This record gives sequence, structure tokens and C-alpha cells, in this order.
Amino acid sequence: MANKRLGTQTVKFDNPPSIVATASIVGPKEGQGPLRKFFDEILNDELWGEKSWEKAESKVLRETLNKLISSSDKKTSDINYVLAGDLLNQCISSNYAIRESNIPFLGLYGACSTMAESLSLGSIIVEGGYADNVICVTSSHFCSAEKQFRFPLELGTQRPLSSQWTVTGSGAALLSSTGNGPYITQITTGKIIDMGIRDAHNMGAAMAPAAADTIYKHFEDTGGIPADYDLIITGDLGYIGMEITNEILIKQGCRITDRFNDCGAMIFDRERQDTHAGGSGCGCSATVFAGYLYKEMLSGNLNRILFVATGALMSPTSIQQGESIPGIAHAVTIQKTRG
Amino acid sequence: MANKRLGTQTVKFDNPPSIVATASIVGPKEGQGPLRKFFDEILNDELWGEKSWEKAESKVLRETLNKLISSSDKKTSDINYVLAGDLLNQCISSNYAIRESNIPFLGLYGACSTMAESLSLGSIIVEGGYADNVICVTSSHFCSAEKQFRFPLELGTQRPLSSQWTVTGSGAALLSSTGNGPYITQITTGKIIDMGIRDAHNMGAAMAPAAADTIYKHFEDTGGIPADYDLIITGDLGYIGMEITNEILIKQGCRITDRFNDCGAMIFDRERQDTHAGGSGCGCSATVFAGYLYKEMLSGNLNRILFVATGALMSPTSIQQGESIPGIAHAVTIQKTRG
Repeated sequence: MANKRLGTQTVKFDNPPSIVATASIVGPKEGQGPLRKFFDEILNDELWGEKSWEKAESKVLRETLNKLISSSDKKTSDINYVLAGDLLNQCISSNYAIRESNIPFLGLYGACSTMAESLSLGSIIVEGGYADNVICVTSSHFCSAEKQFRFPLELGTQRPLSSQWTVTGSGAALLSSTGNGPYITQITTGKIIDMGIRDAHNMGAAMAPAAADTIYKHFEDTGGIPADYDLIITGDLGYIGMEITNEILIKQGCRITDRFNDCGAMIFDRERQDTHAGGSGCGCSATVFAGYLYKEMLSGNLNRILFVATGALMSPTSIQQGESIPGIAHAVTIQKTRG
Repeated sequence: MANKRLGTQTVKFDNPPSIVATASIVGPKEGQGPLRKFFDEILNDELWGEKSWEKAESKVLRETLNKLISSSDKKTSDINYVLAGDLLNQCISSNYAIRESNIPFLGLYGACSTMAESLSLGSIIVEGGYADNVICVTSSHFCSAEKQFRFPLELGTQRPLSSQWTVTGSGAALLSSTGNGPYITQITTGKIIDMGIRDAHNMGAAMAPAAADTIYKHFEDTGGIPADYDLIITGDLGYIGMEITNEILIKQGCRITDRFNDCGAMIFDRERQDTHAGGSGCGCSATVFAGYLYKEMLSGNLNRILFVATGALMSPTSIQQGESIPGIAHAVTIQKTRG
């Protein structure tokens, strides 16, 4: 029987997996942002010697994976599974990057929620005794995402103010059954929430209800309160989605305002780098987690965080066919001590 | 420590999850094939009252999910997770179908290997005590797949003899911590294998090396032999991929020939329904599993099978950019008794 469950959507780990290493590589724009000192590598250009944006994105993921393994005390043969996914059609960034790794592969699609989804499933696999070491990794790329989801860059299309800027970058984490933390102690898996938003240039608004729902359920399931966390950080809601999430939660009596931030709001400088509504993409929460959040936990500036990556589950085809945008959010409790 | 592992790629379940129900819905062509009596519902037309192939595919998945729950003794609120994915860009068949389910959702992308991937992860989640009930489901649709991966049907393009026919259908399974079987007792998770095949009209050849690799590793890890199984059944290699897989394995000293079949080879009548190289698509292995294989296990005609769903992890974009086709295969041991 499922003795590790709390409430309806949460799992609690008695032997929490340790995040023993992370790695991150970002593009030039991200490397000029406020979090630049936390990333492991900053690219000089978006193509990185490749002939297409897609191949460049896949290279970023592959090199992040390599950097992760070489920065850890593990060999490739110690890794039991890699869990990965991305935004490109048929997840080709992950598939082609991991092709060369020789590690058993489980492909995910959670749009920009993928990093939290991979940490959730990775934790289950490690804590359950099914693996000693699991890698979680995802990527996105501004140019491949614009080309696929919106317009080719060459058109020079003007972006509406509610639009977000897809992060170029990849973030990876290595979960292990042994290690000194930070630890993943709880996961809350989200439901798909669709409040009828049809504007594909306002993803923050589309994802906000899912973020609010998962955060609310997390506290309901665990009996915790926002003050249990130093930081509650969503994936890529951006400025608009953050505001909506905050408002929904206040109406529900759950006030997270004073400890709430968003990876998409943090990765770019709002004034100096004007990206309109902030950053987005699988790589947004992945690089901010693997770079900034993980290192701030190691240095003791953050002790307990709720990491809530958010995803918009539409496609250009579904939007063209008049569908609204389903959102999802998965929450992961990460803390310095085992609990 | 990972005490549930066998060898390098396999996990063995001491408390194997039970498959307590399945459901399948297929299109008209599949409903005229040799396995027609095993499917729960056969559609009269490929659109099923919807305005697009994509919406029709999503409806097939949604109704399969509903049929699964209503045919079981569970309520929707008893289901802890649904694991799903499909072939459409950004997995919109699954995302839009599951939007209405109100069940925590974990999205997968394993191309046509998705059914085995979902059964693998679902088994880990249930056996590990993280859930009592998990649904695994996937879909594909001939018309949406042709439109997205090849040519619009309206062009009437001639298909090469090595091409396969994407199955229209959805198959779902409900895994539970309690039940009377059949049980999932072992899983072998595949690595991505790419032998350089570039012909997107010969997916069987592209996936065959991955199928052979996973089957070989399964026997290496478990110490078992092909005779331990009544049937070793791959997902959608079709006639060409089957032959290659068989040959590779014979060269490696692993002879499965007398108990080897393929869902893509079984679902259509080779003579009467000429689909060229056989069936394919996520829905191929999913419907053959949920329909034929599961029911043959319940009736005692099959006692122990190795279900090996296979996926080709390319996209039209990666093929246009000159890339070869990476393949993957995941194997699942399913047996009538607990082991």
C-alpha cells in the first residue's frame, strides 16, 4: 500500500535523495543577467559552432550533461537513468544529446515544468531503491523556440508586452541515494488546469492557475505554511503570471507574497534587459535551479525552498485549432538537512 | 542503496504491481484486422465527430481513459497518477485528453516506446509505495501522424514498401498495489541506440538495433533465457524491423525466433490489409497490449510475456537537418503469477 503519500497529491521521502551535483550552461543574454555569476558556463553566441538552432540546443544539453558527470565523483557507468525532456517537437534536443551518453533513458514531456517533473520522478526512483544515481536534465533555446512556437527570428516580428523570452540554456542535477544534501524531501505532482486562456503570447496567465493550485495543494497535503520556506519559487510565470498566482492564493487565504519569486522574473534584468514579461522555457527553471538556487543552498543563504516549475501544455497546432492553453505545475521541497 | 536492481538496466519487483484493468479503442482499419475481437471499441470513422485529426486522437485517448476507470472497481479519486504521452508535437493528444480528468499528471515522451515506459515508471511508483493506483495510457492516429511526420493525406502520396501504417487507437492499463494479476515483475530500461539509419520511411530498421539491445540486456541482467517466455513481443518494428532484430540477436547467440512476434506485425492482416511493413505508432503496442495480450493472459493462453515497446526518437526537423534516427526500446516482464 502507498504508505509514502501525504494527502491527495504529495509524497514524503523518509530517505530523501541527495542532490550531489548540478551543472548549467546558458546563452549570452542570460550571461549578462543578474544571475550570471552562478552559471557554470556562458556561451558567446547562440549557435555554438552548430548549423542550426536545434543542433545548438542539443549541444548545450549534451555538454551540460558531460559537465555534470565530470564535476561529480561519479563515472557515467554509475548513472542508472537519465530523465530528460525539452520543448522541441518530439523532444529532439534531449534525444540527440543523450544518444551518445550510453545511459538508460526515460523521456519526459512536461513543457517548462520538466525540471520539477524529472526531480520528482528521479527522487521516487532513487528513494525507492531502484537506482543509486539519476540525472535530471532539460534545455530550451530562444531561437529554436521562437522558430517553432511563434515566428522565424528573421521576420523581426514585434513581441507583445505580455510575451516572455525563452531562456537559452540547460540545467542538470545528479540525484544520489548517498550524499550530504541538499535533499529532496517532498514532491507535489500537479493536475492539468485550464482556465480558458487562448493568448499564446501570455503564457504566464495560462500557467498561473496551475501554479496556484499546486502550491495550495502542497500546503493542504503537508499541513505546512509558507513560512516553512525561505523561498517559494515558480519556474517561468514571469511578472504577469506571478502577480496572478499571488492574487489567486491570497483569495484562497494562502499568503506567500513575502517569500515568493519566479525564475523567469529573476534571470533577466527587468529594466536593463527588457524581455517584456520575463524569462521562460524549460531551461529557465533548470538553469536557475542548477545555478543560483543550488549554490545558494550550498552556501547557506537558502535552507529550505519550494521549487515549482510550471508548464504550458499547448502546441501551435492546438492554438490554431482554437484550443485554450492547459497549464501544469509540479512542486519539489528541497532542503539542506534531511528533514 | 539500490537493492532492487539486476545487472545494469533491469529492476526486479518483489511486490509486483497488478494490472487490474485495461481498455482499448481503435479505428476502423484496426477494427477489420485479425485482433478485432480483442478491442473494447471500434470506431466507424477516423474523425469521431471532431473537427480535426488531432482533436479526434485526443478524444480517443480521453474515452479510453474513461472506459478504463469505469470498467475497473476504482473511482477517479482513487487514481494517484496518470502517466501518458503520444506522438503529436508537445504531446497534445495526452495533454488535452487528461486536462478533464482531475488526476495528477506526469507527461512522458518515448515515441512509440511510451506504453512500456509508462508501465515501467508506473510499476516503480506503485511498488515503491508512492501510489496505490496509476494509469498508463498512450495514443496515436494514422491521419494526424501522416500530416505531422510525412505528407498531408490529401496529397495522396505513394508510400514506400518499407513504410509502416500508424495505428489509430489508444490503449490504457490500470496498475494497482493490490489485485490478482497479471503482474509486472521486471523492467529493463533501454539506452538510445543509433546505427545511422536516415530513411524516415524505414522506422523498423532504425528501431531494430535498440530492440535487440534491450532484449539482449534483459537476458544478460536477469540470467533468464527466451524459453522463460511464452511470447517476446516488440512494439512496432513491423516485418522489416522484426527480421533485423531476429538476425542481430542470433548473431549474439540469443535465439528468440520461435517465440518472437511484433504488435505491428499482428494488428493488420499482411495479405488482406496490405499496410506494407506493418503497423506502428504509440497506439500500436498500447492497443495490442491492452486488447489482445492482456486478455490472452487473463484467459490463460499466455502466462509470461516480455513486452518490448520500441520508439524512433527523431522529428521531421531533425531528419530535414540530415540527422539519423535514434531508437529506443523498453522491456517489461508481465506474468500471471506473482513470480
